[in-house]
Amino acid sequence: MEQKLLDSKTIFKLRVLEELSKREVVELDELSRELGLQADELSAIIGEMKENHLIRVEDSSVVWLAGDNPSRIKPWGWSYVYKTIVGSTMHVAKGLPSWSIVVAEYQVHSYGRHGKEWISDLGGVWATFKLPLEDRIAQYLPLAIPVVLCELFRERFGVDAKIKWPNDVVVKGGKLAGIIIEGEFYKNRLHVYVGIGINVNNDPKLEKAVSLKSIVGKLTPRNRILSYLSGVMGRIEKYVENHKKLQAQYLGLLETLGRRVAVLLLRDGAVTGKVIGVTETGDLVVDTGVEKVKFSSTEVYELKYL
Amino acid sequence: MEQKLLDSKTIFKLRVLEELSKREVVELDELSRELGLQADELSAIIGEMKENHLIRVEDSSVVWLAGDNPSRIKPWGWSYVYKTIVGSTMHVAKGLPSWSIVVAEYQVHSYGRHGKEWISDLGGVWATFKLPLEDRIAQYLPLAIPVVLCELFRERFGVDAKIKWPNDVVVKGGKLAGIIIEGEFYKNRLHVYVGIGINVNNDPKLEKAVSLKSIVGKLTPRNRILSYLSGVMGRIEKYVENHKKLQAQYLGLLETLGRRVAVLLLRDGAVTGKVIGVTETGDLVVDTGVEKVKFSSTEVYELKYL
Repeated sequence: MEQKLLDSKTIFKLRVLEELSKREVVELDELSRELGLQADELSAIIGEMKENHLIRVEDSSVVWLAGDNPSRIKPWGWSYVYKTIVGSTMHVAKGLPSWSIVVAEYQVHSYGRHGKEWISDLGGVWATFKLPLEDRIAQYLPLAIPVVLCELFRERFGVDAKIKWPNDVVVKGGKLAGIIIEGEFYKNRLHVYVGIGINVNNDPKLEKAVSLKSIVGKLTPRNRILSYLSGVMGRIEKYVENHKKLQAQYLGLLETLGRRVAVLLLRDGAVTGKVIGVTETGDLVVDTGVEKVKFSSTEVYELKYL
Repeated sequence: MEQKLLDSKTIFKLRVLEELSKREVVELDELSRELGLQADELSAIIGEMKENHLIRVEDSSVVWLAGDNPSRIKPWGWSYVYKTIVGSTMHVAKGLPSWSIVVAEYQVHSYGRHGKEWISDLGGVWATFKLPLEDRIAQYLPLAIPVVLCELFRERFGVDAKIKWPNDVVVKGGKLAGIIIEGEFYKNRLHVYVGIGINVNNDPKLEKAVSLKSIVGKLTPRNRILSYLSGVMGRIEKYVENHKKLQAQYLGLLETLGRRVAVLLLRDGAVTGKVIGVTETGDLVVDTGVEKVKFSSTEVYELKYL
């Protein structure tokens, strides 16, 4: 197990969120006693938390705006699990029934495609949706999920979100959201895990990452995003009914289209060329000048713009 | 606030203890899902936990021996608070009613006399007892508490525990337990906080620290210690009734007696000489060769053997 270090402030911020998730309002005195922190230590922690969470201090209490407290939502038709700290929401979802959503405030071992680093710090939306889907539907998720996310950012927040193939959501080159899709056959049925990470009110540490907060200039109540996603994920089949339309939507949002790229393969080697499209199920089509080559996201480690 | 780093393993060990403290037995599958860890990650964590806690794996469950699980005791006459992680048990006790005991698995900001470093890692006994005491009783605690601890180690564990002035409990020069005593007047009444830290099953990181585990060669169920202490602390007045006897007991256990020492003072300066005794309330008496000087523990930063 990779040994990650957490600072004690993060631990106490999570403990504060845990207390607030139960009650929304907590007396500072009580909280200081609960956590075994001195008043000035607690007040420094709360002060910092305001940068990533919609909390405020009123009289001698801390208040967490209900709309930013993901423990407060009960998405209809879903089994919903809220955690403050987990290894990964993907792992929590394993073993849960289908139609489960797992949301965490902090993931210690979060990962991206091909196990790439993805930091899930305080204030973001880190969620896994577990769905029972037929194979013929599931194959279109790599197109549908980034389209859904782009629509969310464009329509609800007026943000010019685009797709970097295969499924990063970017704004002006900065990664705003990441997606990971995994499948599992159990009792002859396919269960799909859709992991979504969105830099909402957190301060992303990775280079080339950007938060919604920095784009819109203020904190966003995260439940708006979670409610939207739970609604859309519940009817994701609708999104893929018309493959041709989905493909067109995806291409319309694909900033990668027309770009000259280097395709770094998981097996050694790289191919360079111009992106001329994607297939119905999201394979990248690259014109090398000599031939047209298709790449599945499972064989590509990274796509670099040239 | 001092920024301490914790490793993610410690965090997950604490989460495991939290789950076990509620139920004593937990299915590994369930735990792995609860924490969002893969089976092999969880199994590595449980494996390490066995070094500091009396837990075992049976079939596909983790079991915590009730006697090592401090959440399981309900000391008679006390209000009892068990926490997995706190800043300090002393701070948790502030604001709680008198006759409270606070026990934590891990303290982030634990401190010793004069704010000295004291590491409270996994497997130790970290507790604060809050007592209402009259001043005339409280003044003898600096003698009574180390005597009580030495009796515990000598009688229950056959360990040759001694006192290093003012109130460290040592075995062959290694620090086995530390004590911190603080008082607070509230509504004209004195409330005393007795903080006790014992290296039981933990692996102390500080040089010159030693654990009961390393002395007796096995793990000790910590509730034996906590039950003993809650019993004794409830009738601590009995221990100080006969001041002369208490003073004699303390002197009999004081390894510092007769030693040549350097007394480092909190205000600049140091005094060297031979320890020839302590007063009834625990002040150190040193013969400098020229005169006999008394030192209160509040003015001494450190006592060094020469």
